[in-house]
Amino acid sequence: MAKIAIILGSDSDLPVLDKGFKIIEKLNLAFELRILSAHRTPEAVTEYINSLDAKGIDVIIAGAGKAAHLPGVIAAQTVKPVIGLPIRASLDGIDALYSIVQMPGGIPVATVGINASDNAVLLAAQILALKHPEINAKLKEHRVEMRAAVLEKDRQIQEKYNK
Amino acid sequence: MAKIAIILGSDSDLPVLDKGFKIIEKLNLAFELRILSAHRTPEAVTEYINSLDAKGIDVIIAGAGKAAHLPGVIAAQTVKPVIGLPIRASLDGIDALYSIVQMPGGIPVATVGINASDNAVLLAAQILALKHPEINAKLKEHRVEMRAAVLEKDRQIQEKYNK
Amino acid sequence: MAKIAIILGSDSDLPVLDKGFKIIEKLNLAFELRILSAHRTPEAVTEYINSLDAKGIDVIIAGAGKAAHLPGVIAAQTVKPVIGLPIRASLDGIDALYSIVQMPGGIPVATVGINASDNAVLLAAQILALKHPEINAKLKEHRVEMRAAVLEKDRQIQEKYNK
Amino acid sequence: MAKIAIILGSDSDLPVLDKGFKIIEKLNLAFELRILSAHRTPEAVTEYINSLDAKGIDVIIAGAGKAAHLPGVIAAQTVKPVIGLPIRASLDGIDALYSIVQMPGGIPVATVGINASDNAVLLAAQILALKHPEINAKLKEHRVEMRAAVLEKDRQIQEKYNK
Amino acid sequence: MAKIAIILGSDSDLPVLDKGFKIIEKLNLAFELRILSAHRTPEAVTEYINSLDAKGIDVIIAGAGKAAHLPGVIAAQTVKPVIGLPIRASLDGIDALYSIVQMPGGIPVATVGINASDNAVLLAAQILALKHPEINAKLKEHRVEMRAAVLEKDRQIQEKYNK
Amino acid sequence: MAKIAIILGSDSDLPVLDKGFKIIEKLNLAFELRILSAHRTPEAVTEYINSLDAKGIDVIIAGAGKAAHLPGVIAAQTVKPVIGLPIRASLDGIDALYSIVQMPGGIPVATVGINASDNAVLLAAQILALKHPEINAKLKEHRVEMRAAVLEKDRQIQEKYNK
Amino acid sequence: MAKIAIILGSDSDLPVLDKGFKIIEKLNLAFELRILSAHRTPEAVTEYINSLDAKGIDVIIAGAGKAAHLPGVIAAQTVKPVIGLPIRASLDGIDALYSIVQMPGGIPVATVGINASDNAVLLAAQILALKHPEINAKLKEHRVEMRAAVLEKDRQIQEKYNK
Amino acid sequence: MAKIAIILGSDSDLPVLDKGFKIIEKLNLAFELRILSAHRTPEAVTEYINSLDAKGIDVIIAGAGKAAHLPGVIAAQTVKPVIGLPIRASLDGIDALYSIVQMPGGIPVATVGINASDNAVLLAAQILALKHPEINAKLKEHRVEMRAAVLEKDRQIQEKYNK
Repeated sequence: MAKIAIILGSDSDLPVLDKGFKIIEKLNLAFELRILSAHRTPEAVTEYINSLDAKGIDVIIAGAGKAAHLPGVIAAQTVKPVIGLPIRASLDGIDALYSIVQMPGGIPVATVGINASDNAVLLAAQILALKHPEINAKLKEHRVEMRAAVLEKDRQIQEKYNK
Repeated sequence: MAKIAIILGSDSDLPVLDKGFKIIEKLNLAFELRILSAHRTPEAVTEYINSLDAKGIDVIIAGAGKAAHLPGVIAAQTVKPVIGLPIRASLDGIDALYSIVQMPGGIPVATVGINASDNAVLLAAQILALKHPEINAKLKEHRVEMRAAVLEKDRQIQEKYNK
Repeated sequence: MAKIAIILGSDSDLPVLDKGFKIIEKLNLAFELRILSAHRTPEAVTEYINSLDAKGIDVIIAGAGKAAHLPGVIAAQTVKPVIGLPIRASLDGIDALYSIVQMPGGIPVATVGINASDNAVLLAAQILALKHPEINAKLKEHRVEMRAAVLEKDRQIQEKYNK
Repeated sequence: MAKIAIILGSDSDLPVLDKGFKIIEKLNLAFELRILSAHRTPEAVTEYINSLDAKGIDVIIAGAGKAAHLPGVIAAQTVKPVIGLPIRASLDGIDALYSIVQMPGGIPVATVGINASDNAVLLAAQILALKHPEINAKLKEHRVEMRAAVLEKDRQIQEKYNK
Repeated sequence: MAKIAIILGSDSDLPVLDKGFKIIEKLNLAFELRILSAHRTPEAVTEYINSLDAKGIDVIIAGAGKAAHLPGVIAAQTVKPVIGLPIRASLDGIDALYSIVQMPGGIPVATVGINASDNAVLLAAQILALKHPEINAKLKEHRVEMRAAVLEKDRQIQEKYNK
Repeated sequence: MAKIAIILGSDSDLPVLDKGFKIIEKLNLAFELRILSAHRTPEAVTEYINSLDAKGIDVIIAGAGKAAHLPGVIAAQTVKPVIGLPIRASLDGIDALYSIVQMPGGIPVATVGINASDNAVLLAAQILALKHPEINAKLKEHRVEMRAAVLEKDRQIQEKYNK
Repeated sequence: MAKIAIILGSDSDLPVLDKGFKIIEKLNLAFELRILSAHRTPEAVTEYINSLDAKGIDVIIAGAGKAAHLPGVIAAQTVKPVIGLPIRASLDGIDALYSIVQMPGGIPVATVGINASDNAVLLAAQILALKHPEINAKLKEHRVEMRAAVLEKDRQIQEKYNK
Repeated sequence: MAKIAIILGSDSDLPVLDKGFKIIEKLNLAFELRILSAHRTPEAVTEYINSLDAKGIDVIIAGAGKAAHLPGVIAAQTVKPVIGLPIRASLDGIDALYSIVQMPGGIPVATVGINASDNAVLLAAQILALKHPEINAKLKEHRVEMRAAVLEKDRQIQEKYNK
């Protein structure tokens, strides 16, 4: 079964994952959450990356703030897709965004928006769906629901404003 | 066989793809290149997205500059992974980067660095490799080659400077 | 009678319209408010744009935050003037501003300041006034009132500080 | 007949208008070009604005660089729509963009992209088209041509790359 | 007697002057405060500038936020020194700073830091002191006091930390 | 007779003064140019500042790039007005601008635009004019000439474009 | 015994040192804290720098906000390593960062992150450790503890999420 | 004897070291230059760091561009001082600066200005001088020479301009 690894550089960033956890629940995805630091526990990072195949994990979400090296350091050690989640901890998250998205040639990180853990999980699911058609179906259903939610909001607003 | 769609918003952006084409050649990837504009040919974009399944295309690279809507507009119409390539056309590429990476919740775009077409192609390959083990092998080989190239440069530099 | 379409990408942005609604009331303008998303409900956007002529709507205000594609996506589907309202949702609104104002050649969006819904409505009124002289008169009256309000504040301040 | 006023703060900015002149020619629009400075010739600015009605001019394009006050200073003296064209003269045009788009409440300026004189003229035409249906037709034709140009480029690219 | 004109674009910016008022009191300076808008009351601005000579006012402080045109518009109408005070109202005050400091050649504005009304008043006093030696003496005294205040703080801190 | 001190942190910045020298010539101002570094020759800076009174110098222009401390370091040692000229040497001049304009409370620097040596000299002249009426006359004459130059350009442009 | 000088430009910045004080305590470092201003008390700065040798102080931490000249002004007066601590007082700390890190050639300042007093102290300790092996041991111990803390957090998180 | 390690992420960055090499020559410093990539050759980085003690290297300069992880990745593996040199490769070097200076708490990097290899070497020398008094003497001599060079330039300028 498909499984996502989520790695944060610090447990103080956990609240940023709230929106992502909601998507995980909605799509009923399997995941594993780790707190691992590119700078403080580099060996634990490497050890974990080496265990991914055995665990059946095919995609990694890595979130970090400031000079956010974690996603790039992970991406350097695997050819599995790594999704970089820039976390707003200073400079409105711009430092984390640049530290993640501007990777040198050869080692890509699939970067999503600042604090956008929902999109990180959705992107992980979209990647896994290539191999797991059941996720594909759930993603399409989620799109339908999002669309319905907007249309319902629109209906309410029209009723209130455009009588 | 695995195939990548590459879509540019304008043919004036073609030179940005040079580094990407080299990776395509090196990894011997199949691809299809299109010039389609989110604003000038929205129907052609939609039509092309609807043809992806039939063509066996599972991942899309979309590159655009300025207020770069193309990757997001494509991502809104498919649950296949969309890789956004911000192109430097003004403001050092910052406008394109923000227009691509800061997508609203629900519609992720996997963003790579400004003008980083090599990383866009590598990311596409890493995603396809989940389903296509032969690409996996090529990616690992490419990493080995990159590593060897750095070590060789290092050897030359050491010879020159650290006698 | 002249009518303005106001489209928001999300109902969570409604409070930003407060200043705009005050201008609408003051100038006694007719408007229609919709919640429509460029990414979640693209067909509803298109459908609504196609209905504008029938509804006698000649100008559209579109507001969105982050990678704000809505104004540009609308502008691509009509030659009626589209006013882009960048909404502060992240990065102080800079991401929304760039995503709206830096449109590629051929598809202009008339961009106002970040969160400046009052100016969006005034601009819509100024455009409509070309065809509707009664709005022209109200706009001039509003200018006179603004001028009087500044002069009155100035009088009070002078009394307090420059005795 | 509909006519556009184009005002630049300095004749050194004339080359920026090249793309705009092409649109003017293509749409066969009437225009009047002036060099007037908000700071050096404020009375001439006022005098010209007061002459607009007599000249049948209903929309103004004002372009300036650096601390670009011209569009706002003009907008303060008329309720006709003023299109602000930020010109890149320093700081990549960001100073001009902020000085134009971030107008205080009450005096909107319809801002287009940095150096985007083509979009400034198109926006002017879209505004005039509300009153002048013949411009409307030309604008739609221009959209059709732009669309055709992209499709032709796409056809050429496909021939070259996707044999 | 030397007198400073202080002009704000909006009375909502009054709290920014608090630090400046303290300097005014300390140096016992004469001033006149006005609320005048470059866009809403341009004639009142001009009228006031024309009255400066009669009032014996030789230096002007002009504060504004966002697309802050007021200092430049005033500077265009007088050769008396105009001190520009950028006020933080959006974008951390960067828009106001650029709109004030990046004036085109020919019309300088002496710009101080964002919200730095104390420095605006001190700069005005330093300029007036060229003609009014009594202000010179007070400025030097103020420097001595500032120096003493730092040294006293340093003494307290040393006592607490460096026993 | 009135005299301006111009101090640069490095002689490599001399070309930036070209526009300023033209104003000096036009207004027939007396000046003294020095190359003095806040960091390399702090004692020479102090020595020079202490000589200003004897030399009859009442206003100082200080230009520097990068972490431009020179204007602030000078301003800390005199209550004469110090005009800060940010020089573009890196980061488009933004680092120099911030290092000069964002001075802490108590020590103002009158900052002009990036590389705007013409405005630095004009501001110096405007300050000196408070005490030296003959400069006042020249400044007004210069404004008249600038105005005439714009009007002449406008006449030429009208002849060419608005036949 | 090794000792660190910590100099702040203003006592209002003291809370920024909290994280640094914790490191000082943990590593049991000797330090001296001073409030000295580059602009208000330049002589006291010089006097203090001249006393460093006598006090056995070999490394200096200097923290300041806005146009933060203090670290550079100190670095210009000693060849001992100066660690610059940019303090967030405006513009998210970017002005302080640029004013400290972008020093002209010849006078380096070892800059740490915005408000990162913990890293400033650790860097000071790492520098002193070259001469004082006992600090070296403590630094390595601190790394071991940091590593253990992350691993413990990771264990807790795994227990909670990855049962 | 004291020795500096200089590590670049890519040999294409070698020209940036020119200014640094001049300082090395002037101060007659010993150094070792390596090309090692945090992402492509992480093991070689680790291996080299482990060899530093044996080689008598006490300070490391690490330079990289874009998402510049190299200095931080090195700093995470040693308690020797690591000097980070941000290299301008995109975004004017801002991405490299943020990726280096904004390190998370616990792992400091002593950051110098963008492309400032001269200051990187000088800082390394200042750190080594704590243990090696002969470097101290050379550094002081270099300061004297820099001071003399500025004074000589000043003398020439005075001769030319202030006759």
